[in-house]
Amino acid sequence: MQEQSENIESIKIPALDAILGKKFPVLDDGFIRVIDYMGGDEAIVQAARVSYGKGTKQVRQDRGLIRYLLRHKHSTPFEMCEIKLHIRIPMDAWRQWIRHRTANVNEYSTRYSLAIDSAQTTKNDEWRLQSSDNKQGSSGFFDSQIGQILSEEEANLHKNLKEIYLKRIEMGMAREQARKDLPLSTYTEAYWKIDLHNLLHFLKLRMDSHAQFEIRQYATLIGQEIVSKWVPITWEAFTDFSINSTEFSGVEMQILKKIIEKDEISANEIAKKSGWLELDKNGELKHSLERMEFEQKITTLGLIPNWKA
Amino acid sequence: MQEQSENIESIKIPALDAILGKKFPVLDDGFIRVIDYMGGDEAIVQAARVSYGKGTKQVRQDRGLIRYLLRHKHSTPFEMCEIKLHIRIPMDAWRQWIRHRTANVNEYSTRYSLAIDSAQTTKNDEWRLQSSDNKQGSSGFFDSQIGQILSEEEANLHKNLKEIYLKRIEMGMAREQARKDLPLSTYTEAYWKIDLHNLLHFLKLRMDSHAQFEIRQYATLIGQEIVSKWVPITWEAFTDFSINSTEFSGVEMQILKKIIEKDEISANEIAKKSGWLELDKNGELKHSLERMEFEQKITTLGLIPNWKA
Amino acid sequence: MQEQSENIESIKIPALDAILGKKFPVLDDGFIRVIDYMGGDEAIVQAARVSYGKGTKQVRQDRGLIRYLLRHKHSTPFEMCEIKLHIRIPMDAWRQWIRHRTANVNEYSTRYSLAIDSAQTTKNDEWRLQSSDNKQGSSGFFDSQIGQILSEEEANLHKNLKEIYLKRIEMGMAREQARKDLPLSTYTEAYWKIDLHNLLHFLKLRMDSHAQFEIRQYATLIGQEIVSKWVPITWEAFTDFSINSTEFSGVEMQILKKIIEKDEISANEIAKKSGWLELDKNGELKHSLERMEFEQKITTLGLIPNWKA
Amino acid sequence: MQEQSENIESIKIPALDAILGKKFPVLDDGFIRVIDYMGGDEAIVQAARVSYGKGTKQVRQDRGLIRYLLRHKHSTPFEMCEIKLHIRIPMDAWRQWIRHRTANVNEYSTRYSLAIDSAQTTKNDEWRLQSSDNKQGSSGFFDSQIGQILSEEEANLHKNLKEIYLKRIEMGMAREQARKDLPLSTYTEAYWKIDLHNLLHFLKLRMDSHAQFEIRQYATLIGQEIVSKWVPITWEAFTDFSINSTEFSGVEMQILKKIIEKDEISANEIAKKSGWLELDKNGELKHSLERMEFEQKITTLGLIPNWKA
Repeated sequence: MQEQSENIESIKIPALDAILGKKFPVLDDGFIRVIDYMGGDEAIVQAARVSYGKGTKQVRQDRGLIRYLLRHKHSTPFEMCEIKLHIRIPMDAWRQWIRHRTANVNEYSTRYSLAIDSAQTTKNDEWRLQSSDNKQGSSGFFDSQIGQILSEEEANLHKNLKEIYLKRIEMGMAREQARKDLPLSTYTEAYWKIDLHNLLHFLKLRMDSHAQFEIRQYATLIGQEIVSKWVPITWEAFTDFSINSTEFSGVEMQILKKIIEKDEISANEIAKKSGWLELDKNGELKHSLERMEFEQKITTLGLIPNWKA
Repeated sequence: MQEQSENIESIKIPALDAILGKKFPVLDDGFIRVIDYMGGDEAIVQAARVSYGKGTKQVRQDRGLIRYLLRHKHSTPFEMCEIKLHIRIPMDAWRQWIRHRTANVNEYSTRYSLAIDSAQTTKNDEWRLQSSDNKQGSSGFFDSQIGQILSEEEANLHKNLKEIYLKRIEMGMAREQARKDLPLSTYTEAYWKIDLHNLLHFLKLRMDSHAQFEIRQYATLIGQEIVSKWVPITWEAFTDFSINSTEFSGVEMQILKKIIEKDEISANEIAKKSGWLELDKNGELKHSLERMEFEQKITTLGLIPNWKA
Repeated sequence: MQEQSENIESIKIPALDAILGKKFPVLDDGFIRVIDYMGGDEAIVQAARVSYGKGTKQVRQDRGLIRYLLRHKHSTPFEMCEIKLHIRIPMDAWRQWIRHRTANVNEYSTRYSLAIDSAQTTKNDEWRLQSSDNKQGSSGFFDSQIGQILSEEEANLHKNLKEIYLKRIEMGMAREQARKDLPLSTYTEAYWKIDLHNLLHFLKLRMDSHAQFEIRQYATLIGQEIVSKWVPITWEAFTDFSINSTEFSGVEMQILKKIIEKDEISANEIAKKSGWLELDKNGELKHSLERMEFEQKITTLGLIPNWKA
Repeated sequence: MQEQSENIESIKIPALDAILGKKFPVLDDGFIRVIDYMGGDEAIVQAARVSYGKGTKQVRQDRGLIRYLLRHKHSTPFEMCEIKLHIRIPMDAWRQWIRHRTANVNEYSTRYSLAIDSAQTTKNDEWRLQSSDNKQGSSGFFDSQIGQILSEEEANLHKNLKEIYLKRIEMGMAREQARKDLPLSTYTEAYWKIDLHNLLHFLKLRMDSHAQFEIRQYATLIGQEIVSKWVPITWEAFTDFSINSTEFSGVEMQILKKIIEKDEISANEIAKKSGWLELDKNGELKHSLERMEFEQKITTLGLIPNWKA
């Protein structure tokens, strides 16, 4: 390997230093702020070049290398960057967040201290309707007049729950027990430290349109306001190759080829063999999730299949 | 390495098979049951002997080997056993449980399905007082007459919260939002899969007297009813060398030696040098957590220090 | 959630039980054999249904569910299956294997025991040429006459290294030091335990044509002989959606759409904007990895781009 | 929680900055150098205080808090510090190192590049004898005249292996295959990134007298030259409570108490019940590892047991 100079300095990213400690508000009373970080785009290149046994090159080549690494899922160089965030978030969203096991966490303890005196409130026009096609999602909003009633009821509920909590505390009840009936909307805080590879995985899942609204606000903010400043080249590559990418299965590629070639018969044959074109007793195409997802993907390519069962 | 026979069978533990699927009740409406497992004491020995390049020996030597491995914190053979539990637990206790990141988890989704219609209730004589010496613990109980009032209030609260939740659902609110004000006492369920090494670590922390009452009930049950049947030799060794062990720091060993030798002057000198014997302005020994923890430990040995600052 | 019966049994997969302990040979003196396992396709469905709060359905729906989970990268249900393998492999390939950190490992210790008396030998027709286009790969073979010379030299070398090792041992040298000059081709053995999700990730990387020949033999065998029997539905889905899939970036989808629409001008414009069509001083298209990878992908669709810089 | 100022800076440790990039030599041709880091003692306190919901206090209290956290194995605050090292080490020692799975790694690739042209050489007086009482250790050295012969033989061997490797490369053999007979003593390099909690665990195991000499040199250097400068308060606490600590099992505490009280009869009874005092056919005390380890521990306390079977 190349001889390396003995005097080096920590990698510093001025654009990130400029927002260190700054509270980015999320939801009605949450926030995210960067506490500290290690590395940047340069550290990814540096680590990859240890593997390749090469010294540092120009920025232009760095960009190509980072894009290559990300595209081909060479994840270890991205693990060489680390970031620590301070997060204030409703417990309900935190319950989802904490499922990502690859981070380090210190959360505010409501055994040791009084619970944070704040619960997520919902405004008149923020009450969401159950999605009919997505069993775990929402779609559209309640009329804001109905919303007003719901918001008032929520405000009363929060007031009541808070009073009961505080009364318990004043009576001398153990904090660890007094909290048992606090609502899931209660805010909590935590320090959360994670490497860039695992952070991108988190963002991929939680910036997705299927993620719940609340956690999506946090993830989107981390991506657009923090990661984009910290590692701009990686962020661009991640957007291109991960956020905006489309994946076709082996069978889908075969059918796509036939559709492009306008060979409808073969396209239908392969689809049939894959179980996409079964008929119900009325002779209608049965619901097939795989077929429907494919249709959606090729719509982006301006194509429409002409299924014949 | 020794030649190994080609036909082997899965390790089966009849005592564990006998309780497979059985619901052990915990708290008022929780439970734990074993869904499946892999390995047993025999698998630990088997794995250790791959490292040592040796074949299987007699049970008596197996016991010695397992005790040796556990005592010397050779953890990898214990990772060769795996267990899968089905757990029903209040979300508040689950929040603590999930902090152990080395397990695999599938939790009941209240985005996809209606929240479980049950919250942990507290009986008249179960309301706990805040501990005065342990900021994150409880100590003693409220008088059951006061407890009765608290329990009734809790019952009303749960009824109210449930009605609000169900009303929101009936109105067509998205499940993911309707749940936001459910209390932390609401039950959840999960499949939880973990290897034996990490399970013992979990038990060490959560069977401890400083762990919160609720999670301690689950941990104790897992240890005494499940692990003891699954890996009886390991469970005995774990009890001896981990649950019941006492650790002395280097300085503590030095002071202990002097106290045993009845050399009070030297004992005091070392304690002083370690900052244990500082005086306040009234000439009294200052509070020193390290000194007090040492005193507690040597009490078990029938020793009492005679500090002179 | 549904009431569940109290008496259950471990999930058993007869097709896997039938090969339990059987040594599948790999390379000249390596092998893989299954020691034990937990779960199967059924356990994946079982875990997913805890999340959805639903009971068990028919096999037909199970297949759809497993395919949905795998396609949408819902990884936690796949973590509910676990397998333990006994592997005999050259240290050089094991060095790559062990980089996958999500498994449990017990390796044969050459500190404690004599090194395994076997090194991977290379036959006359197995000596590989350095790939010219892939800096970290091989391509084609040496003529077997040259190979014969190489194999003989290797045999002498192994003999010599073995003699030196044994002489050191006989002299009374510490095993931990005597081994220092053993070749990387020396065989080692290990127990290796991993969950199905992480195993599939391992297979995706190590069955790939870019993985080194040696480790690819092990990975392919695990996939085709073991995983296919253990979890046949998952294996089929993994083959369709992961092994055989093709991913297009956002920009690639845009260009693909234009090529399908035979709108060459727009295709070229987007490609240009993406930096794919830069010219060198001779007016030739510069080497662009991103462009070339795209060309390769659309070849599968029967398409050829007509670049104009 | 307390209001926190919006403008913060990365935690910088001048004593560590002063050695950033400096190569600390290890063995004949290895080194360790710090590439970057995040946090310090202050970050541990900062994270712990998020849990406790408190602001920053004085240094004196910080020391007490860090010692408390370390003593009571509250590990998460220590995970808030991260360090990245550049390591050059023989592959044989690296094989042990890499077993610690909680770090991030980028290793020099001998598939992509030529193997590092250096193997660990052993000087005349460095050849170690197999330990007779520790099956996996060494004890004492060969006479340096014998050592000279061994070193010369080793030099020839390394020369020969290097020539064969280079000849293979020159012939056009794939690097991934040419390396197969390189000795385990060949140097490799890697970037290795780990959090402080897991680093301390690594040091506990690898600074131990039972760790192999080679890796112990690296671990000791990391501890004494790097961690001691990075987090001096933590390093002191780690030395006191972990490196120098002694652990007694429940049974050992009981026997120790009886020995201190000079109650030999009871001490013997408990020991007997624990299986420590079995006799062989000659009426001699059988070898008992547990008994011997206990004897060794209480020797430190100036005590000698008087066993009577």
